[in-house]
Amino acid sequence: MDPNPSHNTTKTTTLGPQSLCMEITAMEAHRVVMPPARTMAQKLGSRLKETFFPDDPLRQFKGQPARRRWILAAQYVFPILQWGPNYSLKLFKSDVISGLTIASLAIPQGISYAKLANLPPIVGLYSSFVPPLVYAVLGSSRDLAVGPVSIASLIMGSMLRQEASPTKDKLLFLQLALSSTFFAGLFQASLGLLRLGFIIDFLSKATLIGFMAGAAIIVSLQQLKSLLGITHFTNQMGLVPVLSSVFHHINEWSWQTILMGVCFLVLLLVARHVSMRRPKLFWVSAGAPLMSVILSTLLVFAFKGQRHGISVIGKLPEGLNPPSWNKLQFHGSHLGLVIKTGLVTGIISLTEGIAVGRTFAALKNYQVDGNKEMIAIGLMNIVGSSTSCYVTTGAFSRSAVNHNAGSKTAVSNIVMSVTVMVTLLFLMPLFQYTPNVVLGAIIVTAVIGLIDIPAAYSVWKIDKFDFVVMLCAFLGVIFISVQDGLAFAVGISLFKILLQITRPKTVILGNIPGTDIYRNLHHYEEAMRVPGFLILSVEAPINFANSTYLNERILRWIEDHETEEDEKQQSTLRFVILDLSAVSAIDTSGVSLLKDLRKAMDKKGAELVLVNPLGEVMEKLQKADEGQDLLRPDNLYLTVGEAVAFLSSSIKAQSTSHV
Amino acid sequence: MDPNPSHNTTKTTTLGPQSLCMEITAMEAHRVVMPPARTMAQKLGSRLKETFFPDDPLRQFKGQPARRRWILAAQYVFPILQWGPNYSLKLFKSDVISGLTIASLAIPQGISYAKLANLPPIVGLYSSFVPPLVYAVLGSSRDLAVGPVSIASLIMGSMLRQEASPTKDKLLFLQLALSSTFFAGLFQASLGLLRLGFIIDFLSKATLIGFMAGAAIIVSLQQLKSLLGITHFTNQMGLVPVLSSVFHHINEWSWQTILMGVCFLVLLLVARHVSMRRPKLFWVSAGAPLMSVILSTLLVFAFKGQRHGISVIGKLPEGLNPPSWNKLQFHGSHLGLVIKTGLVTGIISLTEGIAVGRTFAALKNYQVDGNKEMIAIGLMNIVGSSTSCYVTTGAFSRSAVNHNAGSKTAVSNIVMSVTVMVTLLFLMPLFQYTPNVVLGAIIVTAVIGLIDIPAAYSVWKIDKFDFVVMLCAFLGVIFISVQDGLAFAVGISLFKILLQITRPKTVILGNIPGTDIYRNLHHYEEAMRVPGFLILSVEAPINFANSTYLNERILRWIEDHETEEDEKQQSTLRFVILDLSAVSAIDTSGVSLLKDLRKAMDKKGAELVLVNPLGEVMEKLQKADEGQDLLRPDNLYLTVGEAVAFLSSSIKAQSTSHV
Repeated sequence: MDPNPSHNTTKTTTLGPQSLCMEITAMEAHRVVMPPARTMAQKLGSRLKETFFPDDPLRQFKGQPARRRWILAAQYVFPILQWGPNYSLKLFKSDVISGLTIASLAIPQGISYAKLANLPPIVGLYSSFVPPLVYAVLGSSRDLAVGPVSIASLIMGSMLRQEASPTKDKLLFLQLALSSTFFAGLFQASLGLLRLGFIIDFLSKATLIGFMAGAAIIVSLQQLKSLLGITHFTNQMGLVPVLSSVFHHINEWSWQTILMGVCFLVLLLVARHVSMRRPKLFWVSAGAPLMSVILSTLLVFAFKGQRHGISVIGKLPEGLNPPSWNKLQFHGSHLGLVIKTGLVTGIISLTEGIAVGRTFAALKNYQVDGNKEMIAIGLMNIVGSSTSCYVTTGAFSRSAVNHNAGSKTAVSNIVMSVTVMVTLLFLMPLFQYTPNVVLGAIIVTAVIGLIDIPAAYSVWKIDKFDFVVMLCAFLGVIFISVQDGLAFAVGISLFKILLQITRPKTVILGNIPGTDIYRNLHHYEEAMRVPGFLILSVEAPINFANSTYLNERILRWIEDHETEEDEKQQSTLRFVILDLSAVSAIDTSGVSLLKDLRKAMDKKGAELVLVNPLGEVMEKLQKADEGQDLLRPDNLYLTVGEAVAFLSSSIKAQSTSHV
Repeated sequence: MDPNPSHNTTKTTTLGPQSLCMEITAMEAHRVVMPPARTMAQKLGSRLKETFFPDDPLRQFKGQPARRRWILAAQYVFPILQWGPNYSLKLFKSDVISGLTIASLAIPQGISYAKLANLPPIVGLYSSFVPPLVYAVLGSSRDLAVGPVSIASLIMGSMLRQEASPTKDKLLFLQLALSSTFFAGLFQASLGLLRLGFIIDFLSKATLIGFMAGAAIIVSLQQLKSLLGITHFTNQMGLVPVLSSVFHHINEWSWQTILMGVCFLVLLLVARHVSMRRPKLFWVSAGAPLMSVILSTLLVFAFKGQRHGISVIGKLPEGLNPPSWNKLQFHGSHLGLVIKTGLVTGIISLTEGIAVGRTFAALKNYQVDGNKEMIAIGLMNIVGSSTSCYVTTGAFSRSAVNHNAGSKTAVSNIVMSVTVMVTLLFLMPLFQYTPNVVLGAIIVTAVIGLIDIPAAYSVWKIDKFDFVVMLCAFLGVIFISVQDGLAFAVGISLFKILLQITRPKTVILGNIPGTDIYRNLHHYEEAMRVPGFLILSVEAPINFANSTYLNERILRWIEDHETEEDEKQQSTLRFVILDLSAVSAIDTSGVSLLKDLRKAMDKKGAELVLVNPLGEVMEKLQKADEGQDLLRPDNLYLTVGEAVAFLSSSIKAQSTSHV
């Protein structure tokens, strides 16, 4: 347990004259000790805990009586039990206002997004009815407005279209969409239950900025169909095929549709602009879509617009969500596509939902438990898939409106849901004359906010590589496909991390004069080399992926150092100090590296000195250290300063005794 | 460029009474400075250089006259020009001895390994003739003995058998093998040329130990066919199918074959044991295979063994390698498999060749350039594929014999090659009666050394996770398939690295009394908390994959700290110090994390203090720091000691002025 018991006494006797502070430190010799012994089970336990339970969810149960624990457990599973008992009329008033506001947004957006997913418009309304009710019971965010969202709709629509035509095989397409929703929910809930939520962390901010912007453009391009009134629109999604198709069918453009589209687009964009400038006027942009729908429907009805080339939604069935568990398909030739679609839409919608939840939680200073949210969103989609709903999550734009409208609890989702229910039961005939062009304008206005140029600029400013990742995601989505662009961007983000590990930084340290601080020579210009010493710091865990590189690199540092010394006629290299403070972990290859370096140093007549190996590293070195003397007391120090002070005083003592 | 110009003066005035060493350090206030400005091109250049040219191959050309440079360049491409001019008769004598020794090993092993790859035995001899000549010109190792090796042969044989039968479609199988060899060579040479050699680093030592041991068992199992004299042997490779097939055909076992096999196996193993005990007797194990072949051939010939159920090699064609470029296939339905086989065997044989070269270079204290070796091995296989050779590399067992026999240069490969040539031209009829059982015994003896139990034990001792990786590779190879076992082991090694990044360690630091050293509280028991401070160290680069986790984890540290303080009635938390010394890199998500933490701290009334951000981190923080005051002079220190000294003195100064 104590590798160097005689350290303290042997060293202080050989102490030479050093600067005051160094001497003080040197006299109080500090040993590198082994971390407290822990059994393998303890180590494994703490590792697993950090990996899967970093938030320590059971903390609140500690030291509570059994009855209280049951209550806490119930509250943990159903957050509604936490805030429900204290719910008051005052809170209810706020929730009704915000609920009605988001309902006015949810109804037109629901219809629009369902069309984006190539599903019947009514499915969008179904999806705004059941999932919010489920979320209100299970979810822990107070601001999340649940419903269909643009990007997940787009991805589902485009992926499923690979194997089923939404126009010819309507029933099959719906079945596939519902089955994908089921798998998305299953996948989301499993991630939460297995506490693998960190998987969504692999979608970096930069990736998401690029991906969102690309998706927004793809979504907007799809709206050219309804905005220009084209009837023969391409089935493809990419920028090039859509634009070429649009200009190829220039004869199909309908001026009435375009005029109407431009008017409402301008109206909606102005409303959006006003609300962005003055958050208090949130109701302007929140109410604008519903107003546009009502206004345009009245216009079409009054002027018989459908006879002048303006396409309308048409008759929608009345009534609540029909059950759909009989439509779920768990076998057959499309199962692979269905699972894949569920996986992709599941992850994407989860990412959006969690990010939105966290954003507003941070604003209001409460915590959202990522894994719990995943379970809530997952169950919501599983229930949804058997009640004719397609994939839903927390939508950013609607949640922002919800927050601005003063929502206090998930009751605002219930209010929205009830409003949608009333619409489904009684108001469906009113949408018969709603023109598609207005729905297109609503979608464009909603997704335009996903193009975040200031964020992109700040990424460019801070990190060029992240910008490249962002650009790849953006261009990949626009020119190749939504899912490939995303996969490519995730791939290169991971590649960057692996590259950082394969090529860790090694820096050469120098002494900052008058102190025992040692810092990077190439960063701190006042730092000075110590003659006879080469002090290197390795700034990464040492493992199989980088031990070969580190070996070569460290030997090159030594060679460079020797060449310089030859030129300057300085003293020859006596000690190579490796500062391991930043080496958080090591594996067997890393241990071999240190052994190999020690041998190489012995051949050169220099000594390898280790400084401050951390707990885990220290343990592994000790286990591997059989007669190798890797951890000899005179080769192991707590700080670079102490190592230099001791070793240089021992050189002096030697040279004095030789004289 | 200088974020805190007034640091030095403002702080020293507020200095309170501290320990002597602290005071000294505090008076010599040290600022965190920006690293020297570099343009983006410079940064990109140095990053690319570290990634692709860490060995700085052009260093030797610096400051040389033009003529000398040409010579150096030619020597760089053809290492033979480097040692050729100084070649002497004395060196030649050593090389002839070692060359003849490895030839005596290469001939029986060549025949055996070709059979392992399901190829005609003669291909094994062809492969021991041309590739060594190519390597002698291009290679930089002095000890590598080039030729076919067991594991690459096994993999090629088993992968190609998926689409072609080696018994029914002999020509097709040979064509596929040669084409795979071509792609293996192309792939190896490209890795070298593109300087992507680090890809083989992803095969960790632990993975290789497990993989090699598994492959050795699979190879040995395959030898049961010839060792037991079974005629109806299974086509599968796994442990279970082979054993069940062996015991299913128990009636086919031939006692004559078994008797002969056991005798020669014992002979070979004893010879191997003798040489391992006394390296000077290397020739015992080196000569044993050839002796066994000669002896067994004579026995069969004398007793007409082939009539007693002992299968023999049969007639082999005489003559040198026929050209085979017309057999290479670059199209057709098998192309995918051929490329995949080339990739897998290419990487595996490259790994073996480079590792062997490095091992012996380290013993003799010379350098082997990994990327150059890859080009040499690659070209050797490309040339080989058009001269009827299958995949070759540096073989470990033969290289060890070569080294022990005193080889000095690559001339020993030329001597071996010439010996094989003579054999091919004149001695082929002698092998007609060589029994297959002896070849089986030779293979088993050769591969048994790949099972390295001491190495496996040391992995178990040092790193349990590495041991799991090893076990996965081993069991995967034995029970699933050679390539899947390997892929699985590489996958989980990479997953471990990613997990380390996703869940970086954060440790809480305490002061070691009497010093300004701060170390992990849970490792150094004498370390003490500083009241009012929470000092955390983050031990990994901060990026998108861990910023969410770090945010949660750091907030939990703070909460825990506050709970403890409540219990102990200590002073409240004033400062959270983040030691960034071990944060080697940061990306945009990491920068956001720090900003978010700063906001969270502000809400709690505590201050976030950063210590020692490294060059790149410092740059990115400054770029992102617009009015956020992340890098305010009073929140940025060079060491934890200085930060604590300054901040606690400023607290005292405040409280004094209040009094």
